[in-house]
Amino acid sequence: MATRGKIYHCINSQQFDRPLIEKLCRLADQIRKIADTKEGMDFLESTLHHKRAMLYFVQPSTRTFLSFYSACQILGIKCAEVRDPKTSSEVKGESEEDTVRIFSSYFDLIIMRHFKANFTVTIAEMLDGTDRPVPVINAGSGKDQHPTQALLDIYTLKRSFKDRGGIDGKRIAFVGDLWRGRTVRSLAQLLTKYQGIKQYFVAPTEFQISADLQAYLNEAGVSYELTDDLKRIIPLVDAIYMTRLQSEWDEVDGTCCQLDLDKYSIGRRQLALLKPDAIIMHPLPRKTELAREIDADPRAIYWKQVRNGMWIRAALIAMIFQQESAILSYT
Amino acid sequence: MATRGKIYHCINSQQFDRPLIEKLCRLADQIRKIADTKEGMDFLESTLHHKRAMLYFVQPSTRTFLSFYSACQILGIKCAEVRDPKTSSEVKGESEEDTVRIFSSYFDLIIMRHFKANFTVTIAEMLDGTDRPVPVINAGSGKDQHPTQALLDIYTLKRSFKDRGGIDGKRIAFVGDLWRGRTVRSLAQLLTKYQGIKQYFVAPTEFQISADLQAYLNEAGVSYELTDDLKRIIPLVDAIYMTRLQSEWDEVDGTCCQLDLDKYSIGRRQLALLKPDAIIMHPLPRKTELAREIDADPRAIYWKQVRNGMWIRAALIAMIFQQESAILSYT
Amino acid sequence: MATRGKIYHCINSQQFDRPLIEKLCRLADQIRKIADTKEGMDFLESTLHHKRAMLYFVQPSTRTFLSFYSACQILGIKCAEVRDPKTSSEVKGESEEDTVRIFSSYFDLIIMRHFKANFTVTIAEMLDGTDRPVPVINAGSGKDQHPTQALLDIYTLKRSFKDRGGIDGKRIAFVGDLWRGRTVRSLAQLLTKYQGIKQYFVAPTEFQISADLQAYLNEAGVSYELTDDLKRIIPLVDAIYMTRLQSEWDEVDGTCCQLDLDKYSIGRRQLALLKPDAIIMHPLPRKTELAREIDADPRAIYWKQVRNGMWIRAALIAMIFQQESAILSYT
Repeated sequence: MATRGKIYHCINSQQFDRPLIEKLCRLADQIRKIADTKEGMDFLESTLHHKRAMLYFVQPSTRTFLSFYSACQILGIKCAEVRDPKTSSEVKGESEEDTVRIFSSYFDLIIMRHFKANFTVTIAEMLDGTDRPVPVINAGSGKDQHPTQALLDIYTLKRSFKDRGGIDGKRIAFVGDLWRGRTVRSLAQLLTKYQGIKQYFVAPTEFQISADLQAYLNEAGVSYELTDDLKRIIPLVDAIYMTRLQSEWDEVDGTCCQLDLDKYSIGRRQLALLKPDAIIMHPLPRKTELAREIDADPRAIYWKQVRNGMWIRAALIAMIFQQESAILSYT
Repeated sequence: MATRGKIYHCINSQQFDRPLIEKLCRLADQIRKIADTKEGMDFLESTLHHKRAMLYFVQPSTRTFLSFYSACQILGIKCAEVRDPKTSSEVKGESEEDTVRIFSSYFDLIIMRHFKANFTVTIAEMLDGTDRPVPVINAGSGKDQHPTQALLDIYTLKRSFKDRGGIDGKRIAFVGDLWRGRTVRSLAQLLTKYQGIKQYFVAPTEFQISADLQAYLNEAGVSYELTDDLKRIIPLVDAIYMTRLQSEWDEVDGTCCQLDLDKYSIGRRQLALLKPDAIIMHPLPRKTELAREIDADPRAIYWKQVRNGMWIRAALIAMIFQQESAILSYT
Repeated sequence: MATRGKIYHCINSQQFDRPLIEKLCRLADQIRKIADTKEGMDFLESTLHHKRAMLYFVQPSTRTFLSFYSACQILGIKCAEVRDPKTSSEVKGESEEDTVRIFSSYFDLIIMRHFKANFTVTIAEMLDGTDRPVPVINAGSGKDQHPTQALLDIYTLKRSFKDRGGIDGKRIAFVGDLWRGRTVRSLAQLLTKYQGIKQYFVAPTEFQISADLQAYLNEAGVSYELTDDLKRIIPLVDAIYMTRLQSEWDEVDGTCCQLDLDKYSIGRRQLALLKPDAIIMHPLPRKTELAREIDADPRAIYWKQVRNGMWIRAALIAMIFQQESAILSYT
């Protein structure tokens, strides 16, 4: 999917090696810097002014959708969207492959979120076999992958630790429903590309990370620990990555409700245990696992994380359309 | 919310003093004049080309939504929208405050319509406490406020009376369901800033204006009359502001149906009683209270009123982003 | 609706005479050529950069909607859309005429798809009587008309036959549900403007073309044949226009299911009978009548047909706004 230093389709987080990640982060930094002035925004808007993107989001999403939408707008890309499969021709019995091929007839980029795992791969391969292939970005597929979330998380870690030696050597705890969270899965995999990381997975046993993710981490030879004791872990770490219990995916209704959710939450009390320069991240939306009372704490950086997503996605799209040197050389 | 001569958030009609209203109307006049040529449109489009707006319309609305959308497009602002709360992350249990804070992470302006009274105030205050505050425009909240409707109504009155000494000294009748209409409420309040106005409120007793609006008018020391006799009032006034009975807000189903709606309607027969230079306004949509047979009469200006809404909203947004001198000095 | 060589409203396929069709096709060719470079796209985008369009699609549609949307974007027209009548003010009891008149207050062009036959005519006439008339494009109305589909079909035929003497003298078969397909109706009518055409209508008796279409063809004095024997027809023709059985319009549920659908389908077996330089078209979406196994065959041009739709619609809109000479003289 990606030859060295380049991106065409964006399918999964494994396709990003460390030099590519570094390049993306540098590009995102440059885009946000340029975007600071009207002249800069006018320049960015001119780079891909001639392109049009389809945002095909079959699975509900506000933040990822708007983040990509904004990223496209920043680069001048004109967007169209199909979000509700009921308005689409699928009601007339059309296959999803045909639906997407229609999109590729009109648009230059397809950004898609789908409930089927691997659907983006199927689509990318189908399009590559046509005489009008266009790049595809996976904006979340099933329980499987959400690569741009992983990129924005890495970007957020990099920015947070830029005066402390970067991501290498840091201790990072994932907390919550780790079993079904594709966000955690994608980020944990990307972190294996960094040196001396220790990952903590803090969850009740039934929501711990899957065997195949453990196998992946073992294979990569990285250090990690599974535990259900958040209180013990908090003082040890440089970053806490909170996630919510996603009740909408529960296979057995009510399972999550028997848990002591408080054990996997962060409020003022837990904050007191955290190192003064550590950070708290969350992919959002949150429920009760992240108390609003801590929002004003400088260590709570999840709102910055949201905005980082827009910049890193703009960088990704700019790279797909080979605009990195034009943007990096802008002064 | 507004320091003298400036606007940041647009929350309610009371925040607009007369000089500010005059400035807005002048700016709207200039924008519509500039928009007359392609060169002018290109100029307008360049003024806020670097900005992006979120239109967050939880309550259904076609005309207000499209009016703001068009106003943004005229100024080059790129829009995104969230209209159906079901597509949003609220299905995942997110608070509305968090949802809006996400918007503020991606966009430079939030235009919102909501069924909760005072929701815009809550949001504006919340955003002011963050490190990325953005301006908020109230596009209608509950039964409470709809300030841009009041501004477009004032703008329409000003244009209609520009050769007859302006709004001061005019007699204006409000007709219909005055109890629940936030439109009437907002305009009646704004009119207190003009001299020698007489307001007539024509409605069946159970749909008359609320006690607190009466208190407001009393406090302002303005002249007004409550009546249920439209026929007597028609020949006296310079402007009739029609409204429909909004059955969708009925607390007791069927209440409005026992009324003789014909008593609060305008057709060809009532038109005959109206002064030749008086005007008929309506915020639209209409039901039967405004017969289509009178649409072609020059005194029927509700379609012009619709378009005025687009221009005054463009003026408002231009002021929020401090573009008034750039626009006023364009030749 | 159209004076010679010009277009204002686009209502039905009959309004297009042959010189006008030729002009549109030439313009579409030029637009697609210009669109090949970033400079060209920037030029196209500047032509109607000052215009705004409303896409009012009450009837579900993906491809026609996106095709128009893309065509507008290519020309720099800013779009707004109303697709779900439930979000509109119609829930407040507004008439559709009023709804559309609101659109005409904000936008410079209305593109509409509606389930009512002749609704576009009603609207065009209503708007022509106001002091802010705007052009209207019919993007499909009832079982009646879908003129831009007919234009894109003609454009596809022209491009396919450009090295073989053009459309004149060709044999064209329509296959499937010809009774309810407005696409077939519109194209069959347009083809009467070409010389020496032979049209075959291949359908089960109960889905054959209507008596009034037959009367139209008789009056035009063109050659045609009704049959239910696809196998016999395939080797004779230069173009096969496939359509699907549109079960969603069935008056008696289940009628279509008693047919041997295979008799009206094209797969690898039928392809073997087709002339080597013939073409297969389909308005899409397809069901089983067009096997995916033939997609890679060079005679299968329905995906090109999709993209042709975007270009011819851009040409149509450019003509409505009198941009043809600016575009044709671009080098």
